[in-house]
Amino acid sequence: MPHLDPYFKQVDSLQDAFIERLREAVAIPSISSEDARRPDVVKMGHWLAGQIKALGGTVELRELGKQPGREHLDLPPCILGRYGNDPNKVNVLLYGHYDVQPAQKSDGWATDPFTLHIDEKDRMYGRGSTDDKGPVLGWLNAIEAHQKAGVDVPVNLLMCFEGMEENGSEGLDDTIRAEKDKFFKDTDVICISDNYWLGTEKPCLTYGVRGCNYYSVEISGPGQDLHSGVYGGTTHEPMTDLVRVMNSFVDPDGKILIKGIDELVAPITAQEDALYGPIAFTMQDLHESLGSTVSIHETKEEALKHKMRYPSLSLHGIEGAFYTPGAKTVIPAKVIGKFSIRTVPNMEIDEVTKLVEKHVNDEFAKLKSKNTMKFHIVHCGKWWVEDFNHPNYTAAAKAVERVYGVKPDMTREGGSIPVTLTFQEELKKNVLLLPMGSSTDAAHSINEKLDKRNYIEGTKLLGAYLHYVAGELKK
Amino acid sequence: MPHLDPYFKQVDSLQDAFIERLREAVAIPSISSEDARRPDVVKMGHWLAGQIKALGGTVELRELGKQPGREHLDLPPCILGRYGNDPNKVNVLLYGHYDVQPAQKSDGWATDPFTLHIDEKDRMYGRGSTDDKGPVLGWLNAIEAHQKAGVDVPVNLLMCFEGMEENGSEGLDDTIRAEKDKFFKDTDVICISDNYWLGTEKPCLTYGVRGCNYYSVEISGPGQDLHSGVYGGTTHEPMTDLVRVMNSFVDPDGKILIKGIDELVAPITAQEDALYGPIAFTMQDLHESLGSTVSIHETKEEALKHKMRYPSLSLHGIEGAFYTPGAKTVIPAKVIGKFSIRTVPNMEIDEVTKLVEKHVNDEFAKLKSKNTMKFHIVHCGKWWVEDFNHPNYTAAAKAVERVYGVKPDMTREGGSIPVTLTFQEELKKNVLLLPMGSSTDAAHSINEKLDKRNYIEGTKLLGAYLHYVAGELKK
Repeated sequence: MPHLDPYFKQVDSLQDAFIERLREAVAIPSISSEDARRPDVVKMGHWLAGQIKALGGTVELRELGKQPGREHLDLPPCILGRYGNDPNKVNVLLYGHYDVQPAQKSDGWATDPFTLHIDEKDRMYGRGSTDDKGPVLGWLNAIEAHQKAGVDVPVNLLMCFEGMEENGSEGLDDTIRAEKDKFFKDTDVICISDNYWLGTEKPCLTYGVRGCNYYSVEISGPGQDLHSGVYGGTTHEPMTDLVRVMNSFVDPDGKILIKGIDELVAPITAQEDALYGPIAFTMQDLHESLGSTVSIHETKEEALKHKMRYPSLSLHGIEGAFYTPGAKTVIPAKVIGKFSIRTVPNMEIDEVTKLVEKHVNDEFAKLKSKNTMKFHIVHCGKWWVEDFNHPNYTAAAKAVERVYGVKPDMTREGGSIPVTLTFQEELKKNVLLLPMGSSTDAAHSINEKLDKRNYIEGTKLLGAYLHYVAGELKK
Repeated sequence: MPHLDPYFKQVDSLQDAFIERLREAVAIPSISSEDARRPDVVKMGHWLAGQIKALGGTVELRELGKQPGREHLDLPPCILGRYGNDPNKVNVLLYGHYDVQPAQKSDGWATDPFTLHIDEKDRMYGRGSTDDKGPVLGWLNAIEAHQKAGVDVPVNLLMCFEGMEENGSEGLDDTIRAEKDKFFKDTDVICISDNYWLGTEKPCLTYGVRGCNYYSVEISGPGQDLHSGVYGGTTHEPMTDLVRVMNSFVDPDGKILIKGIDELVAPITAQEDALYGPIAFTMQDLHESLGSTVSIHETKEEALKHKMRYPSLSLHGIEGAFYTPGAKTVIPAKVIGKFSIRTVPNMEIDEVTKLVEKHVNDEFAKLKSKNTMKFHIVHCGKWWVEDFNHPNYTAAAKAVERVYGVKPDMTREGGSIPVTLTFQEELKKNVLLLPMGSSTDAAHSINEKLDKRNYIEGTKLLGAYLHYVAGELKK
């Protein structure tokens, strides 16, 4: 058993400095999906590179050029960092992202989203606190605590931190492919901390994620927005058509109505079925994280399966229509409906897209509208599943037991983390998801937070994992 | 036939002075919906009162107090003007407004919106040129030309010019009710010049406007926005429910699907049916104003009926869902769908609301969703129709023929002009809409303009109308 106590003690001593590090990171509004914030994403990348270098690591910034299709925008750099270069050590590749989801106070945040706010329960609120700045900084914290504790980091760390994760990871796959025989060549295992526990008390290891096929349907008609009093009744209205098309995708119980989708889903085996019972999760946990009792299913097992291993379809919103409070008597001239399907084995991206596109075309044709419809693929990422009997997982399970005193739940994530799949396919090495945050962290929502406990004990966990994985994979 | 030539000649002679009058008015940015411009609205009211007094009229400024719900703002005064007080003359009440829609050069105006700009085609560009400063000044121009021609103004003029028309006509209805047995007591007929011809060549008289019942449906479920990857499939999604409810309102051909609505619509009579054929309007005109050929109907007559005398239902948008460009994998926690019905005789506001509310409740109940639905009435304004066989209309038709050499189109407006109804209901006198501007004037849009011809010939028309109405209503 690795001697970790000096390291753990040092993490505890440094916690205020670690929180300041997170505060600095949260203060940079690195929203990758907003044009005006792109310079902040770049700024955040340079800040992060500076942090790695300050700890004695080396950094190569891979500039990814212009954003395809949006050439007025530079892509933020992909940070390729290295800490340690000992040929006798195992090489662990870390992935994380330094960009964040959009956020503004007026969305309903209790405090400014880009000012870290710590409440009386030690919840640290701020955009990116848990997704994914906290976990990324966890790795840096671990290095620092090792240094200050005088404990050798037992592996070589390779780092791949991107700035476009919340906007389709544009440019990342190309970088991984380009570097697979170069920067990433000696990778032995991959560890990613960018997901969440199922609850708030028990850590988990995650061996699968759903994919995400994100689409939009654009319907246009009039040459410009029209006054509904003057023109209502004379013109085909794009909103009417769009609502009709969007209505055909899913029923209120979440059943996907697009023909052929269900047939693609791999049947559940008895062995897999048995995994869900032991998971530390209750319907009350679900209701707490929903903030409501509006769950579709009645049992924990059903809810977990629909979260982890069945597909779902969500309608996200409509661009181009009236969206502010109050009343506007407008007939919007062009509206774009956004929706996505969470995919699972064995739904292949293109197969799903073909079914969706045919469905959209058929539904629009039924309307016999003079408006024009365009179907767009916004982004698609495939699902991923991993072998959880690999030493990478055994090491992580031991680290969890050491830090938290419990065996981790073995879970799949509902949300997609497409890079898992790219790493798996390109590097052909085992990929582990080792989350830091808890189910109540509200990633992508208002009032995103990371509990101080998760940040600090999570830093211990990430460091401990490095020791166990060095042991399991001893060269 | 009234002897009008000296008057007409004087209007022609004074046209430069009339344009200067409009230039002065346009230069005052009396935007009623912008707090910072409120003093300019008040200034504009005093300028207009000064103009009336300079012509020998009398003015009472009705101060309306603070703006309800926005008590830091004073309402601009309602101008009650009078020109002539001869008990042997007919009393014609004029209504207009001296406030304007917002405008700034950066919205896309070719020239400064508050500097009257006359181009080589004698189009006079400026905010308020056609809506409604030009028409209001048309009445003053008519008085001045009478004076300079030595022709007696054949009626007493009562004037009601308000400064909040573009911001809900706050305070106006109360003023009309308060003054109906006082200032407005002797009103014989009412004339309003605040709408537009259907095209660019042929004047019209307008005898009806549609009403507007504006509603919203609010559906909420989860306690906060959720990540669709993490929660998709586990929760009832408000967007799914809302799209389903909104889908049930109207079909792509504009047919309202809410049970009982159609039955409220007054059947079209043979006499009314015959009105639409002669109207100078083509499908090409409609397509030009739509900026597209996405019209629902194939004939001019059907298109006009659906614009003027049948109800319509428009879906305006959704508040609370994702609305910006790009992709966001969000399950919105609370979404509010906005829609409105343009109403026509004999659809009573409350009757329509009852049907809509029942429909919404029934449709939501069908979903068997655990989400919560609330139905809201946002605002409702009733339709108005007038008896166009009244001497008020006969007089106006004769004036049009005299000035323009054509019989006017008899039209109804699709959009609402609530003051028509208030005057009709409170004063119980015939109300006529006698527009000055044409369909291309772009009221409420960028590059609003009034053609010089419409302003000058329109001034002749307003003056001629006074003579004909005096004749038709001879006491």
